[in-house]
Amino acid sequence: MISLCKDQKVFDTKEQGVLKEILSARRDVRGHHFLDKPIEDAILTEILEAAILAPSVGFSQPWKFILVQDPLKRDEIYHEFRKENTKAAKMFPTTSIYTSLKLEGIKEAPLNIAVLYQKPTKTILGQTTQKKMGEYSVVCAIQNLWLMARAHNVGVGWVSILRAKKVKKILGISNEYKLVGYLTLGYVSKFLDEPELLKLKWDERKRIKEVVEWV
Amino acid sequence: MISLCKDQKVFDTKEQGVLKEILSARRDVRGHHFLDKPIEDAILTEILEAAILAPSVGFSQPWKFILVQDPLKRDEIYHEFRKENTKAAKMFPTTSIYTSLKLEGIKEAPLNIAVLYQKPTKTILGQTTQKKMGEYSVVCAIQNLWLMARAHNVGVGWVSILRAKKVKKILGISNEYKLVGYLTLGYVSKFLDEPELLKLKWDERKRIKEVVEWV
Repeated sequence: MISLCKDQKVFDTKEQGVLKEILSARRDVRGHHFLDKPIEDAILTEILEAAILAPSVGFSQPWKFILVQDPLKRDEIYHEFRKENTKAAKMFPTTSIYTSLKLEGIKEAPLNIAVLYQKPTKTILGQTTQKKMGEYSVVCAIQNLWLMARAHNVGVGWVSILRAKKVKKILGISNEYKLVGYLTLGYVSKFLDEPELLKLKWDERKRIKEVVEWV
Repeated sequence: MISLCKDQKVFDTKEQGVLKEILSARRDVRGHHFLDKPIEDAILTEILEAAILAPSVGFSQPWKFILVQDPLKRDEIYHEFRKENTKAAKMFPTTSIYTSLKLEGIKEAPLNIAVLYQKPTKTILGQTTQKKMGEYSVVCAIQNLWLMARAHNVGVGWVSILRAKKVKKILGISNEYKLVGYLTLGYVSKFLDEPELLKLKWDERKRIKEVVEWV
């Protein structure tokens, strides 16, 4: 057992198990599972509070969350998705299941969130060599958000088939920001027991020994 | 309350609280807090298993973990850090506390992990418009790893003051991969109750209302 100073939180097996269960139960939720039921303000706050507990390079906290409710803007985002997805479908064999997949829930989810990276206006500690650390901090915030949403039984989908430039234009986002992720959130009828693409045998799950190497 | 299908895990307030506590207690650990005590194999496996439960674009799982134990390689990585950090220090005012900060634990931590992104050799579902989704998946895996490490009372530091090219050369990593993060892991004497840069008043913590906007 480890020994930490008296006032330090030492997590136990049960708590480790809870985290594992949340990590395992988290899914990328597509449109057909979202329910038309708003997320309560208190729950949304919990989810966003989790996001901003993420690590950030030089404690820069370079994140911004644009909560999109306006149905007209969401229609425009959906239109942009359709356009890009038509292009994407052509990159896969015609025999592929690609076109049968539902890949977003922009209109079905009660809430969309555009997650932005605010470009620095001063030198950031730790970001001097690797510029990407800023964006990476925002991705860590998204993953925190995703896990806390699942803990609150709220589904999240990350919609990546969108041009950042178009999304920024639709939402009126200035050049000071970069789009990192476009998320759809809402309660769901169901969380799949495994990732959908695994169930569909699109790809197999990699095991630890396939992705680890010692030097 | 939400109602899900019978076989779906519904998390409760207590479990949400455990997640919140882990998210809040996670710290970026620097050299002076690492203990010279190896991480047990079973614990390391738990931490890596958590990493690969992360979401990945098109279920591509484009991650690879290089576990660095070789002291000679770590010396070389440390040397690279020193070089880059000397350059970095010049970017801050001489009155700044920058040079007094310990920013890495490459040699103190019992384990270093280089986390890589494996560039795709085929078209990846969901990555057709935004190429960066692959790297972002790897960042999600790092955040999962970080949280599970904290749940096991293991500290993690992300060392970003390193040139990716040099790290790849030192570790003999081929061009098929891109370095996303260089992590140091180990048991610690202490987890700070707040981020070090917050305690040092380097920057203040942003509140929710500063980073959220509705449209």
